[in-house]
Amino acid sequence: MYTLYFAPGTCALASHIALADSGLPYEVKRLNFAEGEQRSEAYLKINPKGRVPALVTDKGALSETVAILAFIAQAAPLAKLAPLDDPFLFARMQAFNAYLSSTVHVAHAHGRRGTRWADEPSSHADMLRKVPQTMGECFRLIEDDFLAGPYVLGEQYSVADPYLFTIAGWLEGDKVDIAAFPRVQAHYERMKARPAVQKALAEEKAA
Amino acid sequence: MYTLYFAPGTCALASHIALADSGLPYEVKRLNFAEGEQRSEAYLKINPKGRVPALVTDKGALSETVAILAFIAQAAPLAKLAPLDDPFLFARMQAFNAYLSSTVHVAHAHGRRGTRWADEPSSHADMLRKVPQTMGECFRLIEDDFLAGPYVLGEQYSVADPYLFTIAGWLEGDKVDIAAFPRVQAHYERMKARPAVQKALAEEKAA
Ligand SMILES: N[C@@H](CCC(=O)N[C@@H](CS)C(=O)NCC(=O)O)C(=O)O
Ligand SMILES: N[C@@H](CCC(=O)N[C@@H](CS)C(=O)NCC(=O)O)C(=O)O
Repeated sequence: MYTLYFAPGTCALASHIALADSGLPYEVKRLNFAEGEQRSEAYLKINPKGRVPALVTDKGALSETVAILAFIAQAAPLAKLAPLDDPFLFARMQAFNAYLSSTVHVAHAHGRRGTRWADEPSSHADMLRKVPQTMGECFRLIEDDFLAGPYVLGEQYSVADPYLFTIAGWLEGDKVDIAAFPRVQAHYERMKARPAVQKALAEEKAA
Repeated sequence: MYTLYFAPGTCALASHIALADSGLPYEVKRLNFAEGEQRSEAYLKINPKGRVPALVTDKGALSETVAILAFIAQAAPLAKLAPLDDPFLFARMQAFNAYLSSTVHVAHAHGRRGTRWADEPSSHADMLRKVPQTMGECFRLIEDDFLAGPYVLGEQYSVADPYLFTIAGWLEGDKVDIAAFPRVQAHYERMKARPAVQKALAEEKAA
């Protein structure tokens, strides 16, 4: 049994969808961010970073979306969630996920989590103002260069797809019009129709 | 033959050391950041993000340190640069690398690359002031929770080690005293003595 710690609307949705895709047995546990539960003593024992996602396995806990997604794909090889037999394609998938994690997610986080990197309210306001530009630039690259289509890697679905879906879902709140990126938008709609995505979204609501 | 694009003093050093460790045939090509070569038309064809590292393989180009490091380990299994047969330990390694890439490297980048996330000089100064604190907090977690010792994963050396070495090398410039983190410091010294590290540093100088 795998246990995924999540909060609604966060990047943990990517790992949640991948679990739903995988066929692995899992449960989800919701953290209450409003009450700072991600920094509770109990949760810091699971993930000392105080962030979601964390995936508890029978060998111990894992953090970081990039690592959790590849792990789920490797733990459920029959679900074919990554090109496990092709190191180059696997690296392409990982490069996509690492870009989302290290650049796109980070660009987004400057809108609401500016206190991570600066102290003055004027700096936070400045960061928030720039989010539509930086997120727009990231999705321009994704649209033009990285999204092979119909899925991230082309015909083959992979764990990169729920991750892109999750972050594309933040565009509206970031004041970026997804319609400017027709291939991303088509990917978003295609993903929304998948049973695993609907299952994960329903489980987020119910948790 | 693999070709690694790098600039001296950057995160590309991690991939460079991993190549030296791997026994794979490689060459390195230096980009002149002062002249903006990372944004030249020719280089953007290799990596549309305009960043280093990029690794050109006979199947195409790869970017993102996290992806390149795992790829090198998989391409050279005999060099034993990752726990390739143990998905959980592999995920632990990836989680460490993903943390360096998405959080630690990003904390550091706020010192010199603040224009990525804000427009006002006052915001950039604010970000720069905070770097010693954020880098210190990241290395506190690495010291206390993530560095098993003597190597990142414990007795087994992996591509997480050159990555930690590379980023620990930034601490002095970030005004963080590495001596506050004795296990990180011991790891740093141990790494510096390795032939692959000395080879990569010499090749950076010569290129
Ligand atoms: N690099 C991590 C980032 C995780 C992260 O920042 N999660 C956010 C939610 S999207 C979080 O837990 N924030 C809570 C907080 O900052 O207190 C990953 O890719 O998994
Ligand atoms: N997420 C990327 C980050 C790459 C990155 O930011 N590289 C820096 C050097 S450490 C760079 O190329 N900067 C050039 C620029 O910003 O123009 C990775 O982990 O490889």
